[in-house]
Amino acid sequence: MEFKIDGKSYNKARACTIKTAHSTIQTPVFMPVGTQATVKALDANDLLDMGAKIILGNTYHLYLRPGSKLIKKFGGLHGFSKFPNSFLTDSGGFQAFSLSDNSKPDENGITFKSHIDGSKHYFTPQSVLDTQYELGSDIMMILDDLVALPNTRERIKKSIERTTKWAEEAIKYHKEQQKKGIGVNQNIFAIIQGGTDKEFRKLSATQLCALEDYDGYAIGGLSVGEPNEEMYETVEWTTDFMPQNKPRYLMGVGTPEDLIENIERGVDMFDCVMPTRNARNGTLFTSFGRVNIKKATFKEDPLPIDSECDCYTCRNFSRAYLNHLFRAGEITYYRLSSIHNIHYYLNLMRQAREAILADNWLEFKKEFYQKRENTGK
Amino acid sequence: MEFKIDGKSYNKARACTIKTAHSTIQTPVFMPVGTQATVKALDANDLLDMGAKIILGNTYHLYLRPGSKLIKKFGGLHGFSKFPNSFLTDSGGFQAFSLSDNSKPDENGITFKSHIDGSKHYFTPQSVLDTQYELGSDIMMILDDLVALPNTRERIKKSIERTTKWAEEAIKYHKEQQKKGIGVNQNIFAIIQGGTDKEFRKLSATQLCALEDYDGYAIGGLSVGEPNEEMYETVEWTTDFMPQNKPRYLMGVGTPEDLIENIERGVDMFDCVMPTRNARNGTLFTSFGRVNIKKATFKEDPLPIDSECDCYTCRNFSRAYLNHLFRAGEITYYRLSSIHNIHYYLNLMRQAREAILADNWLEFKKEFYQKRENTGK
Repeated sequence: MEFKIDGKSYNKARACTIKTAHSTIQTPVFMPVGTQATVKALDANDLLDMGAKIILGNTYHLYLRPGSKLIKKFGGLHGFSKFPNSFLTDSGGFQAFSLSDNSKPDENGITFKSHIDGSKHYFTPQSVLDTQYELGSDIMMILDDLVALPNTRERIKKSIERTTKWAEEAIKYHKEQQKKGIGVNQNIFAIIQGGTDKEFRKLSATQLCALEDYDGYAIGGLSVGEPNEEMYETVEWTTDFMPQNKPRYLMGVGTPEDLIENIERGVDMFDCVMPTRNARNGTLFTSFGRVNIKKATFKEDPLPIDSECDCYTCRNFSRAYLNHLFRAGEITYYRLSSIHNIHYYLNLMRQAREAILADNWLEFKKEFYQKRENTGK
Repeated sequence: MEFKIDGKSYNKARACTIKTAHSTIQTPVFMPVGTQATVKALDANDLLDMGAKIILGNTYHLYLRPGSKLIKKFGGLHGFSKFPNSFLTDSGGFQAFSLSDNSKPDENGITFKSHIDGSKHYFTPQSVLDTQYELGSDIMMILDDLVALPNTRERIKKSIERTTKWAEEAIKYHKEQQKKGIGVNQNIFAIIQGGTDKEFRKLSATQLCALEDYDGYAIGGLSVGEPNEEMYETVEWTTDFMPQNKPRYLMGVGTPEDLIENIERGVDMFDCVMPTRNARNGTLFTSFGRVNIKKATFKEDPLPIDSECDCYTCRNFSRAYLNHLFRAGEITYYRLSSIHNIHYYLNLMRQAREAILADNWLEFKKEFYQKRENTGK
């Protein structure tokens, strides 16, 4: 992976370029979530048309169905889904923890039952990399030890220790595999834990960033219900312990406002199900805030969702038509709304990058918030 | 509406050109069903990309939601859905009969309750045209009196009489409206009833086709559970009483085999939910017969659905990927499979037309069946 800082602006906001074997990614970047080797309601060409350079796949889901060995036969996620740009895959640990019954961590890994058929599985720091080698993702995340919050300080401390231990094992294993010719074009990121406790975050960040063979570092365990201000403070604090010369990825975040605030605090990469999930529920993102397309006020509205938007949906269809499709339960609605919301996120990141490169971040941010306030939405 | 016969071949197979205010339609033609102003899982551009020159809308659904007055404000179905080619709308009578509670015909129309909110409505031969004027469809179907089958000869006879009476009223009303400048670019088709009884069909066809102001004639009330052979015989018989110089439309039919058999018996136009509904259920149409994409044999199959097919889905995605998307319940599957199945139907009609124009219908038909037999599907 090549990494280069292209520009900086207010506070810690930065614009970078990441080059993987499959694409050149300009940051700040939002990565649409393609859990089961597809972004919900879209296909590979929809994402290419929107200019997506990297999307996510979920290791837990793909490991269980259709299986990473099958995907490997098709040339990995790229060949299977026909999305030719980069993939980032998580470790599967979060889903094993949140989706499966009776997940149980021990010193060496996590035991869990499949949410599909109840079958029993065991993830280790090594096994989740083996799976990701088969998926062929450009960026692999390591297994971390997640804990439900709130929890005892003792348990959180244990989680940090274990995450560091697994991170040491993972990077050692990865380097060995690469020497054998496995995963040579694949990059690996560690995940900083520690909740919203500054000392824990510092401890986890310091320990993991000392493992210098990692290609990048993520901040995990945020956006799990804590107040926004706590999330922003934790990110602001944590990025100070992360190296300048590697990408920084804030996992599972968030709203457009969250992205803006965290770019300013030094984050380069984001992912979240919000644009696609909200689209399906009727919530659309616009330059003037959120819109609920279900509302009766849109029933006869001939305007596009957002007159400033140049996405496929806004170029072609009215709010009235989308309101009708939503109310009628038409599948067509899901694709059109998902295209709009993902385009909004990708475009917001392009605008943020421009603002950083032009060194007018504060002006950009002010305008971002003002537009939302002016329309009272 | 301009109508021209371009060529004829074996038996009564014919290739025609129909010109409406919105498109030039070459027959035999299959019209994808867009019940609620969208073909399920697709949008206007998907249909344009596939070369669809005419699609259906359902008057009953659109009358109830979002309402034909609203659609009129958007320039009719064309402006609302952004599909610029032709629309055919049914009268709504069939859905009032089949979808609503307590539908009840009388001498002047049909009373029914909305399947959405239980509200009470009344359709008359005139009111369904008023609705279709607002929808702006290129071809409007008239209200007919449907009866559940099997039924008494008396009730079927009553249905034919009433359908003819309503057809007389409808064409009179339409001509009056056109004189007032309403619906001047809209065409109107009558619907021949009579079940599978030859005398009843002859009676209904003769009465309706004597109303020479109609722009075309449809055969209704078939494909409702009767054996295929009875349907084919009824069509063969009925088309003899229909004029040569106007389009013939067989409503709600059918399988690819049904289309081939009925083209040979003189039908020009077809519609059916089969390609889209079957797609969603996992059944895909190919040159070698039907394929159930759910089957485990496709799990690792790198081939497209049909190697002879040049649809968007077959050009881009494997059976294995579609199998995975289907099993994973991904919305993306519905669009990709619907594109393939509709393309199959549209393409089959293009091939049928070529065979008719080259006057080698029997050869074409033989090959159509042989391919299916050879692969045992």
